[in-house]
Amino acid sequence: MRKIEHLGIAVKDLKQSNELFAKLLGNKAYKEEMVDSEGVKTSFFQVGDTKVELLEGTGPDSPISKFVEKRAEGIHHIAFEVEDIQKEMERLKKEGFELLNEQPKTGADHKLVVFLHPRSTNGVLVEICQSTQ
Amino acid sequence: MRKIEHLGIAVKDLKQSNELFAKLLGNKAYKEEMVDSEGVKTSFFQVGDTKVELLEGTGPDSPISKFVEKRAEGIHHIAFEVEDIQKEMERLKKEGFELLNEQPKTGADHKLVVFLHPRSTNGVLVEICQSTQ
Repeated sequence: MRKIEHLGIAVKDLKQSNELFAKLLGNKAYKEEMVDSEGVKTSFFQVGDTKVELLEGTGPDSPISKFVEKRAEGIHHIAFEVEDIQKEMERLKKEGFELLNEQPKTGADHKLVVFLHPRSTNGVLVEICQSTQ
Repeated sequence: MRKIEHLGIAVKDLKQSNELFAKLLGNKAYKEEMVDSEGVKTSFFQVGDTKVELLEGTGPDSPISKFVEKRAEGIHHIAFEVEDIQKEMERLKKEGFELLNEQPKTGADHKLVVFLHPRSTNGVLVEICQSTQ
Protein backbone atom coordinates (compact mmCIF):
# COMPACT_ATOMS: atom_id res chain seq x y z
CA MET A 1 0.00 0.00 0.00
CA ARG A 2 1.55 3.27 -1.10
CA LYS A 3 -0.47 5.62 1.07
CA ILE A 4 -3.86 6.36 2.57
CA GLU A 5 -5.58 7.79 -0.49
CA HIS A 6 -8.68 8.91 1.37
CA LEU A 7 -10.90 8.36 4.33
CA GLY A 8 -14.61 7.94 3.60
CA ILE A 9 -17.17 9.44 5.99
CA ALA A 10 -20.89 8.62 5.70
CA VAL A 11 -23.18 11.61 6.24
CA LYS A 12 -26.90 12.29 6.08
CA ASP A 13 -26.81 15.67 4.38
CA LEU A 14 -23.85 16.43 2.16
CA LYS A 15 -24.56 20.15 1.98
CA GLN A 16 -24.61 20.58 5.76
CA SER A 17 -21.59 18.33 6.22
CA ASN A 18 -19.62 20.21 3.57
CA GLU A 19 -20.04 23.32 5.70
CA LEU A 20 -19.14 21.48 8.90
CA PHE A 21 -15.99 19.90 7.48
CA ALA A 22 -14.92 23.17 5.87
CA LYS A 23 -14.98 24.67 9.38
CA LEU A 24 -13.22 21.67 10.89
CA LEU A 25 -10.48 21.36 8.30
CA GLY A 26 -10.10 25.05 7.59
CA ASN A 27 -10.57 24.63 3.83
CA LYS A 28 -13.47 23.93 1.50
CA ALA A 29 -14.33 20.83 -0.51
CA TYR A 30 -12.52 21.11 -3.83
CA LYS A 31 -15.07 19.08 -5.76
CA GLU A 32 -18.36 17.22 -5.66
CA GLU A 33 -19.14 14.13 -7.69
CA MET A 34 -22.14 11.83 -8.23
CA VAL A 35 -21.41 8.10 -8.50
CA ASP A 36 -24.69 6.79 -9.91
CA SER A 37 -23.58 3.14 -9.93
CA GLU A 38 -23.05 3.27 -6.15
CA GLY A 39 -25.98 5.55 -5.36
CA VAL A 40 -23.83 8.22 -3.70
CA LYS A 41 -23.10 11.92 -3.84
CA THR A 42 -19.54 12.67 -2.73
CA SER A 43 -17.35 15.63 -1.90
CA PHE A 44 -13.59 15.79 -1.43
CA PHE A 45 -11.34 17.79 0.89
CA GLN A 46 -7.57 17.83 0.52
CA VAL A 47 -5.68 17.33 3.80
CA GLY A 48 -1.94 17.15 3.28
CA ASP A 49 -1.19 14.20 1.01
CA THR A 50 -4.58 12.55 1.71
CA LYS A 51 -8.26 13.31 1.14
CA VAL A 52 -11.40 13.23 3.22
CA GLU A 53 -14.38 12.02 1.17
CA LEU A 54 -17.89 12.71 2.42
CA LEU A 55 -20.61 10.37 1.13
CA GLU A 56 -24.37 10.81 1.15
CA GLY A 57 -26.64 8.03 -0.15
CA THR A 58 -28.99 9.12 -2.95
CA GLY A 59 -31.74 6.63 -2.09
CA PRO A 60 -32.79 4.13 0.57
CA ASP A 61 -31.01 1.23 -1.23
CA SER A 62 -27.66 2.98 -1.30
CA PRO A 63 -25.06 1.20 0.89
CA ILE A 64 -24.32 4.58 2.49
CA SER A 65 -27.98 5.22 3.38
CA LYS A 66 -28.16 1.72 4.89
CA PHE A 67 -24.95 2.29 6.86
CA VAL A 68 -26.25 5.59 8.28
CA GLU A 69 -29.63 4.06 9.11
CA LYS A 70 -28.12 1.00 10.79
CA ARG A 71 -25.16 2.56 12.57
CA ALA A 72 -25.26 6.37 12.35
CA GLU A 73 -23.10 8.92 10.57
CA GLY A 74 -19.37 8.38 10.92
CA ILE A 75 -16.22 6.94 9.39
CA HIS A 76 -17.23 4.45 6.70
CA HIS A 77 -14.06 3.20 5.04
CA ILE A 78 -10.34 3.72 4.60
CA ALA A 79 -8.86 3.67 1.10
CA PHE A 80 -5.28 2.74 0.31
CA GLU A 81 -3.69 3.64 -2.99
CA VAL A 82 -1.98 0.83 -4.86
CA GLU A 83 0.04 0.87 -8.06
CA ASP A 84 -1.35 -2.30 -9.62
CA ILE A 85 -4.78 -3.26 -8.31
CA GLN A 86 -4.88 -6.71 -9.99
CA LYS A 87 -1.53 -7.66 -8.45
CA GLU A 88 -2.62 -6.36 -5.03
CA MET A 89 -5.92 -8.29 -5.25
CA GLU A 90 -3.98 -11.50 -5.91
CA ARG A 91 -1.62 -10.79 -3.00
CA LEU A 92 -4.47 -10.05 -0.58
CA LYS A 93 -6.44 -13.15 -1.60
CA LYS A 94 -3.37 -15.30 -0.98
CA GLU A 95 -2.99 -13.68 2.45
CA GLY A 96 -6.55 -14.75 3.31
CA PHE A 97 -8.44 -11.47 2.89
CA GLU A 98 -11.95 -11.62 1.47
CA LEU A 99 -12.63 -9.37 -1.54
CA LEU A 100 -16.12 -7.92 -1.88
CA ASN A 101 -15.84 -7.66 -5.66
CA GLU A 102 -13.96 -10.03 -7.91
CA GLN A 103 -13.21 -7.35 -10.50
CA PRO A 104 -12.34 -3.70 -9.84
CA LYS A 105 -15.26 -1.28 -10.15
CA THR A 106 -15.17 2.33 -11.33
CA GLY A 107 -15.40 4.54 -8.24
CA ALA A 108 -15.38 8.28 -7.67
CA ASP A 109 -12.38 10.47 -8.47
CA HIS A 110 -11.07 8.50 -11.49
CA LYS A 111 -10.31 5.32 -9.59
CA LEU A 112 -10.59 1.58 -9.98
CA VAL A 113 -11.67 0.24 -6.61
CA VAL A 114 -12.05 -3.04 -4.74
CA PHE A 115 -13.35 -3.45 -1.19
CA LEU A 116 -12.30 -6.05 1.39
CA HIS A 117 -14.90 -7.58 3.69
CA PRO A 118 -14.65 -6.06 7.19
CA ARG A 119 -14.87 -9.51 8.77
CA SER A 120 -11.41 -10.26 7.37
CA THR A 121 -9.95 -6.91 8.49
CA ASN A 122 -10.86 -6.38 12.19
CA GLY A 123 -14.14 -4.68 11.35
CA VAL A 124 -12.56 -2.07 9.08
CA LEU A 125 -14.06 -1.60 5.60
CA VAL A 126 -10.90 -1.33 3.49
CA GLU A 127 -10.85 -0.05 -0.08
CA ILE A 128 -7.87 -0.43 -2.37
CA CYS A 129 -7.77 1.91 -5.33
CA GLN A 130 -5.70 2.57 -8.40
CA SER A 131 -5.78 5.86 -10.23
CA THR A 132 -6.86 5.72 -13.89
CA GLN A 133 -5.68 9.24 -14.68
CA MET B 1 -5.11 20.95 9.74
CA ARG B 2 -1.78 20.11 8.15
CA LYS B 3 -2.38 16.43 7.42
CA ILE B 4 -3.95 13.22 8.66
CA GLU B 5 -1.36 12.24 11.24
CA HIS B 6 -2.86 8.82 11.91
CA LEU B 7 -5.96 6.72 11.86
CA GLY B 8 -6.78 4.88 15.10
CA ILE B 9 -8.27 1.38 14.91
CA ALA B 10 -9.68 -0.35 18.02
CA VAL B 11 -8.80 -4.06 18.24
CA LYS B 12 -9.33 -6.86 20.73
CA ASP B 13 -5.93 -8.49 20.52
CA LEU B 14 -3.00 -6.30 19.50
CA LYS B 15 -0.69 -9.25 18.80
CA GLN B 16 -3.11 -10.90 16.38
CA SER B 17 -4.01 -7.59 14.75
CA ASN B 18 -0.35 -6.66 14.32
CA GLU B 19 0.02 -9.81 12.21
CA LEU B 20 -3.18 -9.10 10.28
CA PHE B 21 -2.26 -5.50 9.47
CA ALA B 22 1.30 -6.47 8.54
CA LYS B 23 -0.24 -8.76 5.91
CA LEU B 24 -2.72 -6.13 4.80
CA LEU B 25 -0.28 -3.24 4.54
CA GLY B 26 2.71 -5.26 3.41
CA ASN B 27 4.95 -3.93 6.20
CA LYS B 28 5.30 -4.53 9.91
CA ALA B 29 4.49 -2.26 12.86
CA TYR B 30 7.54 -0.09 13.50
CA LYS B 31 6.87 0.33 17.21
CA GLU B 32 4.64 -0.56 20.13
CA GLU B 33 3.86 1.75 23.03
CA MET B 34 1.90 1.58 26.27
CA VAL B 35 -0.11 4.68 27.25
CA ASP B 36 -0.90 3.95 30.89
CA SER B 37 -2.91 7.14 31.40
CA GLU B 38 -5.35 6.08 28.66
CA GLY B 39 -5.29 2.37 29.44
CA VAL B 40 -4.13 1.33 25.98
CA LYS B 41 -1.44 -0.66 24.23
CA THR B 42 -0.71 0.73 20.79
CA SER B 43 1.24 -0.16 17.68
CA PHE B 44 2.11 2.00 14.68
CA PHE B 45 2.41 1.25 10.96
CA GLN B 46 3.77 3.77 8.49
CA VAL B 47 1.70 4.17 5.31
CA GLY B 48 3.03 6.89 3.05
CA ASP B 49 2.96 10.16 4.95
CA THR B 50 0.43 8.87 7.51
CA LYS B 51 0.24 6.18 10.20
CA VAL B 52 -2.19 3.48 11.19
CA GLU B 53 -2.39 3.12 14.98
CA LEU B 54 -3.85 -0.07 16.45
CA LEU B 55 -5.23 0.25 19.99
CA GLU B 56 -6.05 -2.49 22.49
CA GLY B 57 -7.59 -1.61 25.86
CA THR B 58 -5.59 -2.86 28.85
CA GLY B 59 -8.60 -3.23 31.16
CA PRO B 60 -12.41 -3.14 31.15
CA ASP B 61 -12.46 0.59 32.04
CA SER B 62 -10.32 1.60 29.08
CA PRO B 63 -12.26 3.71 26.53
CA ILE B 64 -11.01 1.33 23.84
CA SER B 65 -12.29 -1.78 25.65
CA LYS B 66 -15.65 -0.06 26.07
CA PHE B 67 -15.76 0.92 22.40
CA VAL B 68 -15.01 -2.65 21.30
CA GLU B 69 -17.56 -4.08 23.71
CA LYS B 70 -20.29 -1.63 22.69
CA ARG B 71 -19.68 -1.39 18.95
CA ALA B 72 -17.11 -3.98 17.83
CA GLU B 73 -13.57 -3.69 16.49
CA GLY B 74 -13.08 -1.04 13.84
CA ILE B 75 -12.02 2.50 13.04
CA HIS B 76 -12.00 4.49 16.28
CA HIS B 77 -10.69 7.96 15.48
CA ILE B 78 -8.97 10.16 12.94
CA ALA B 79 -6.09 12.36 14.06
CA PHE B 80 -5.10 15.59 12.33
CA GLU B 81 -1.70 17.17 12.89
CA VAL B 82 -1.69 20.84 13.81
CA GLU B 83 1.19 23.23 14.30
CA ASP B 84 -0.16 25.04 17.38
CA ILE B 85 -2.69 23.03 19.35
CA GLN B 86 -3.74 25.92 21.65
CA LYS B 87 -4.48 28.15 18.68
CA GLU B 88 -6.37 25.39 16.92
CA MET B 89 -8.42 24.65 20.08
CA GLU B 90 -9.46 28.29 20.20
CA ARG B 91 -10.37 28.32 16.52
CA LEU B 92 -12.45 25.13 16.80
CA LYS B 93 -14.29 26.31 19.91
CA LYS B 94 -15.22 29.53 18.10
CA GLU B 95 -16.50 27.46 15.17
CA GLY B 96 -18.83 25.60 17.55
CA PHE B 97 -16.97 22.31 18.00
CA GLU B 98 -17.08 20.65 21.40
CA LEU B 99 -13.70 19.75 22.93
CA LEU B 100 -13.54 16.64 25.10
CA ASN B 101 -10.61 17.98 27.12
CA GLU B 102 -9.98 21.60 28.00
CA GLN B 103 -6.22 21.16 28.10
CA PRO B 104 -4.09 19.01 25.78
CA LYS B 105 -3.16 15.59 27.18
CA THR B 106 0.01 13.61 26.57
CA GLY B 107 -0.81 10.86 24.09
CA ALA B 108 1.18 8.13 22.39
CA ASP B 109 4.02 8.86 19.98
CA HIS B 110 5.29 12.10 21.58
CA LYS B 111 2.12 14.07 21.01
CA LEU B 112 -0.08 16.59 22.77
CA VAL B 113 -3.66 15.61 21.95
CA VAL B 114 -7.20 16.94 22.24
CA PHE B 115 -10.36 15.13 21.14
CA LEU B 116 -13.53 16.66 19.72
CA HIS B 117 -16.90 15.24 20.71
CA PRO B 118 -18.33 13.10 17.86
CA ARG B 119 -21.73 14.76 18.26
CA SER B 120 -20.21 17.99 16.93
CA THR B 121 -18.43 16.25 14.03
CA ASN B 122 -20.99 14.02 12.24
CA GLY B 123 -20.25 11.04 14.47
CA VAL B 124 -16.50 11.08 13.81
CA LEU B 125 -14.17 11.03 16.83
CA VAL B 126 -11.59 13.62 15.79
CA GLU B 127 -8.22 14.05 17.50
CA ILE B 128 -5.98 17.02 16.91
CA CYS B 129 -2.35 16.55 17.83
CA GLN B 130 0.86 18.51 17.99
CA SER B 131 4.26 16.85 18.00
CA THR B 132 6.44 17.53 21.04
CA GLN B 133 9.61 16.17 19.46
